[in-house]
Amino acid sequence: APEKSSWATSDPTQKSSSPPVTTQQRHVSSRGPPLHGPDTPKCRDRAFHFSVSKKMINCVTFPHPDTMPEQQLLKPTEWSYCDYFWADKKDPQGNGTVAGFELLLQKQLKGKQMQKEMSEFVRERIKIEEEYAKNLAKLSQNSLAAQEEGSLGEAWAQVKKSLADEAEAHLKFSTKLHSEVEKPLMNFRENFKKDMKNRYATVEKARKALTELQRDLEMKTQQLEIKLSNKTEEDIKKARRKSTQAGDDLMRCVDLYNQAQSKWFEEMVTTTLHLERLEVGRVEMIQQHLCQCTQLRHETDMFNQSTVEPVDQLLRKVDPAKDRELWVREQKMGNIRPVDMEI
Amino acid sequence: APEKSSWATSDPTQKSSSPPVTTQQRHVSSRGPPLHGPDTPKCRDRAFHFSVSKKMINCVTFPHPDTMPEQQLLKPTEWSYCDYFWADKKDPQGNGTVAGFELLLQKQLKGKQMQKEMSEFVRERIKIEEEYAKNLAKLSQNSLAAQEEGSLGEAWAQVKKSLADEAEAHLKFSTKLHSEVEKPLMNFRENFKKDMKNRYATVEKARKALTELQRDLEMKTQQLEIKLSNKTEEDIKKARRKSTQAGDDLMRCVDLYNQAQSKWFEEMVTTTLHLERLEVGRVEMIQQHLCQCTQLRHETDMFNQSTVEPVDQLLRKVDPAKDRELWVREQKMGNIRPVDMEI
Repeated sequence: APEKSSWATSDPTQKSSSPPVTTQQRHVSSRGPPLHGPDTPKCRDRAFHFSVSKKMINCVTFPHPDTMPEQQLLKPTEWSYCDYFWADKKDPQGNGTVAGFELLLQKQLKGKQMQKEMSEFVRERIKIEEEYAKNLAKLSQNSLAAQEEGSLGEAWAQVKKSLADEAEAHLKFSTKLHSEVEKPLMNFRENFKKDMKNRYATVEKARKALTELQRDLEMKTQQLEIKLSNKTEEDIKKARRKSTQAGDDLMRCVDLYNQAQSKWFEEMVTTTLHLERLEVGRVEMIQQHLCQCTQLRHETDMFNQSTVEPVDQLLRKVDPAKDRELWVREQKMGNIRPVDMEI
Repeated sequence: APEKSSWATSDPTQKSSSPPVTTQQRHVSSRGPPLHGPDTPKCRDRAFHFSVSKKMINCVTFPHPDTMPEQQLLKPTEWSYCDYFWADKKDPQGNGTVAGFELLLQKQLKGKQMQKEMSEFVRERIKIEEEYAKNLAKLSQNSLAAQEEGSLGEAWAQVKKSLADEAEAHLKFSTKLHSEVEKPLMNFRENFKKDMKNRYATVEKARKALTELQRDLEMKTQQLEIKLSNKTEEDIKKARRKSTQAGDDLMRCVDLYNQAQSKWFEEMVTTTLHLERLEVGRVEMIQQHLCQCTQLRHETDMFNQSTVEPVDQLLRKVDPAKDRELWVREQKMGNIRPVDMEI
């Protein structure tokens, strides 16, 4: 079924479209509309609140474990990549961290490599089948015992014929393995590397923007803290004015930060879902082509059985008496027997 | 079934024993007991009778076509060698004649050659199967894509396992081809040549004795003819005495001749029946062993199907979602999603 495999060479990302996960789903337990503006009066409290209720991990704001609202999974039934790779992980070598997204990418690259290796494995099989077919075909052309006669001679000729058919079946097997398995497996990910590079760049860009804004945010938060620690009354008045200014700055900065984080969130969800579809596509594609291998193998045997059958039939018909009859009819040299001489 | 072929290496001549054909059957239309003795009175008439009613061909006495009594075949339903090779044939090259027995011998020798060639053919097949099995086994040891994971990884491992089983099946096929087909085919006629030589010598010896006696007989017949052509009365008296003497000599000679011919007849019948049994044995033996080839071939395929099945089953069980679940369970790095920062 060469048609079946045609989809395999097209972009697997276009195959299934899951319902999109939107930014709204970030906060599953809804707590009403966010309350921030340039001149809200509770800057300090919020700054304090911020420091205890949120946890910044690698520039990302997570809810603080102690006060964490319940978060439902985005795709509770699917063990989806988009639900399990938000955190970073210490590198096993101890230097730096690995982002969840990175681990997903590594899996993809490994999958790509596996697919390539399977294709190579199939190519080896093809070579073996080709050589086997070639040798069988050559033997079937062999003239050994070509002069056997009678019904045995017919059966013998069929033995050779069936060998030629067997060779043909294995050659067909190898040809189909090439066109229907090896090539599709090898070609499937032609655009994979470019695609992965683009997606990685997009997610990394969003992540970097977030990092920069976090640094900005930290600076502004420190500025606010310093202002409030001054003690003289004059200073306090001055500080209050400046604090309002700094508060406004901080609010704007938080806004930008949240926007950047939202952008990153979206990229993460979109891309992990994309990786997920790629992986499903890869596995299904390999599954389908390995099934095709097995199917082709079955066909090879089936075809052989149908070629072995005529040999069986002719062999069952072999009849030395009949053969002798034919030969004697042709070769006989007189059936008058000698008699005693009489005088 | 290695037991089945064990008879093949034993002497096929011991296999079937046809009812023996006796010398009595030479003259099928019975004409009463032969009437010859040393002093029967009708020598001349008989000599005359002999010259017109018998036909001597290559030293053998055949009934004369014009006065031939009806001869039934010794084995009317079997196209037996013993019924059709009593005459000699002009050599196609024109020099000399070929005895019927010689043609039978040639057929045997050709049959022996055919059997040897079939054995060689099977040996070639064995080599091909061995190499195929070796290559499949080597590929099944290959580590390509060994790191594939999940249900697909299991199916892939089974693909390799089934390849090893397939290799094993073909190796078994080649081993059995060797022990159950090639060797028996090759060994069957170990004693054939010696046997043929002995039989040929016996028949030839009988034939030669016949030839010598025929020469003797001709001489004596001529002597008798000469005696009777004398004309004077005294001579006629003398001749009658001598004639009686010569007649007696001739009678004894005819007796000896008939004994020799009878001996040759017996040797011919015995040996052609033996050759016939050899030929039946050869054909049945080859038939049986080629059937064995086909049977072994079927077994190879059947075995393959049973090894391909587990691959099929595992492939049908391949489930990207399940695989992802396993991987995510193991690798997950946090399912708490970021939230907007609030101040």
